[in-house]
Amino acid sequence: MYYLGIDLGGTNIAIGLVDEQGHIVHQGNIPTGRERSATVILEEMALLALEVAKEAGIGLDQIHSVGVGSPGAPDVQNGVIIYNNNLGFRNVPVRAELQKHLPLPIYVDNDANCAALAEGLLGAAGGVRYSVTVTLGTGIGGGVIIDYNIYSGFNNAGAELGHMVIAAGGKLCTCGRKGCWEAYASARGLIEAAQAAAEKAPASLLFKLVDGDLSKITARTPFDAAQAGDQVAAAVVDEYLEYLAVGIGNIINIFQPEVIVLGGGVSKQGMALLTPLEEKVMGEHYGLEGVPPAKLKLAVLGNEAGIVGAALLGFAPEQRALVSLFGPERE
Amino acid sequence: MYYLGIDLGGTNIAIGLVDEQGHIVHQGNIPTGRERSATVILEEMALLALEVAKEAGIGLDQIHSVGVGSPGAPDVQNGVIIYNNNLGFRNVPVRAELQKHLPLPIYVDNDANCAALAEGLLGAAGGVRYSVTVTLGTGIGGGVIIDYNIYSGFNNAGAELGHMVIAAGGKLCTCGRKGCWEAYASARGLIEAAQAAAEKAPASLLFKLVDGDLSKITARTPFDAAQAGDQVAAAVVDEYLEYLAVGIGNIINIFQPEVIVLGGGVSKQGMALLTPLEEKVMGEHYGLEGVPPAKLKLAVLGNEAGIVGAALLGFAPEQRALVSLFGPERE
Repeated sequence: MYYLGIDLGGTNIAIGLVDEQGHIVHQGNIPTGRERSATVILEEMALLALEVAKEAGIGLDQIHSVGVGSPGAPDVQNGVIIYNNNLGFRNVPVRAELQKHLPLPIYVDNDANCAALAEGLLGAAGGVRYSVTVTLGTGIGGGVIIDYNIYSGFNNAGAELGHMVIAAGGKLCTCGRKGCWEAYASARGLIEAAQAAAEKAPASLLFKLVDGDLSKITARTPFDAAQAGDQVAAAVVDEYLEYLAVGIGNIINIFQPEVIVLGGGVSKQGMALLTPLEEKVMGEHYGLEGVPPAKLKLAVLGNEAGIVGAALLGFAPEQRALVSLFGPERE
Repeated sequence: MYYLGIDLGGTNIAIGLVDEQGHIVHQGNIPTGRERSATVILEEMALLALEVAKEAGIGLDQIHSVGVGSPGAPDVQNGVIIYNNNLGFRNVPVRAELQKHLPLPIYVDNDANCAALAEGLLGAAGGVRYSVTVTLGTGIGGGVIIDYNIYSGFNNAGAELGHMVIAAGGKLCTCGRKGCWEAYASARGLIEAAQAAAEKAPASLLFKLVDGDLSKITARTPFDAAQAGDQVAAAVVDEYLEYLAVGIGNIINIFQPEVIVLGGGVSKQGMALLTPLEEKVMGEHYGLEGVPPAKLKLAVLGNEAGIVGAALLGFAPEQRALVSLFGPERE
């Protein structure tokens, strides 16, 4: 059997046909066109899914199910996205709309949960029973895998690790709370800190790398400037890593996962991120004598995580454990 | 069948014989005498367990297992307490020592986990699949119940919710991190804040209630003074509730449990704690449109939670779900 995995993003929709081992055998992409109504977006999504299957020569009778990873708060039981500000979704019946064209079981979950499921089962934490995936993008997405399945609480809105306050009374977050981890340790948090530092130090490389146009600073800029010896950028990166380490230390104390996977844009810094982060976490935020700590790892599935994780929503719980324990090593 | 539950505390050891519905049918207590060696403490504990069973007229053939809730980091698989500073335990083989006198299956877990299991299955969160119990004592203990069982990560050291940093770079915690929730929202955190405020305001009722002897301030003092109209104490309580709300908001975003149970000394303030806390949590720390929030409840089992939870360690997973779903209402 095959599984369709749909990664519904704010910019693009990516759909993959996935086999029982979690490999993408065929893939298609279209722009989301988020200015359009949910009904139109979902119809076009369903037609692309049919096309992807057709191009791969796979009939609907060979497809077990369709999984959709969407931003926003999901009602997993009813296949509804309760709301998502980015797509302008309010109580959108994703399952019902897709089933008009795709007469198959349809599973809907949050995109961060899907990415965590893919990394947790087949990616950087493959074969591991307890893992947490943290996606360092514009915000911070979190996904918690317990016993090879997504944990998201009684209302499927849990694992919002980015909205854990780590600096009470601090920076206002988009969610309304003050001092959320996301406000400091997301790509946006890093960029804002770098912009503030560059503005005060026009002689810095951080400032010069963007020719003084602070809007051009990306998550990469402070890492590049620090690498080249810029002290201003090094201080920005160090403070960023400190905030990141605080949250990682919290995740360890709360979940004690065997592996914490770092994904999203900032994770592309690779070992320049991971090595000093590990030092901070183990040096300042982990104090359990004789108790083995979590391993920090970089995500390995990249953009495929969204598609594969969505497809995995259709796997039965036991099948998820099996594919993780005996699945292909992807590293 | 019956189950022995042992609550090994820093001051007292309480042992109860518990039936299949989770009721304590007979109980015994002795002082811990923590200045003595672990071997001596455990031997006396085993002898008291035998005595409790004998007094109840129950033979060992009618006892399924013995559960021990101990402070410290447990090695659940091997029945060992890896370390506990309060009792001076280092790699103490609790199971092996007890089995010298009690030829029964012996289960060992952390005391906060045991309390959470009791409250989660049979107490304030009885019948609920996902709950979190927060014990506001000298420190903050946490226990997470997922699918009617204790969640504590791959090394059984998880659910250390008190050591979640909520104020990065803030007050130094006993664990070595800075700004832990426990440093602010435990009874000790409250007492320290009340002492600091009273010292600056000798005209306050907070100061007068203890005749200026600040060492006499307990967690109750600021609540009593605030109740009587003291503004200084009211500000202390309000700030305390704010820190407590930050952590509760984090637990909601992370776990989305159906019920959060508040236990420990501070929870004895009852509705004077719960009502303003709920207001803060729902007003400032919960922002999910259309998604039902967790309920906050006060613990109901009191000191029995430790004994009952330890006894429940010996229940099979399915049996735990059954006793919770169909067990006696204890409220």
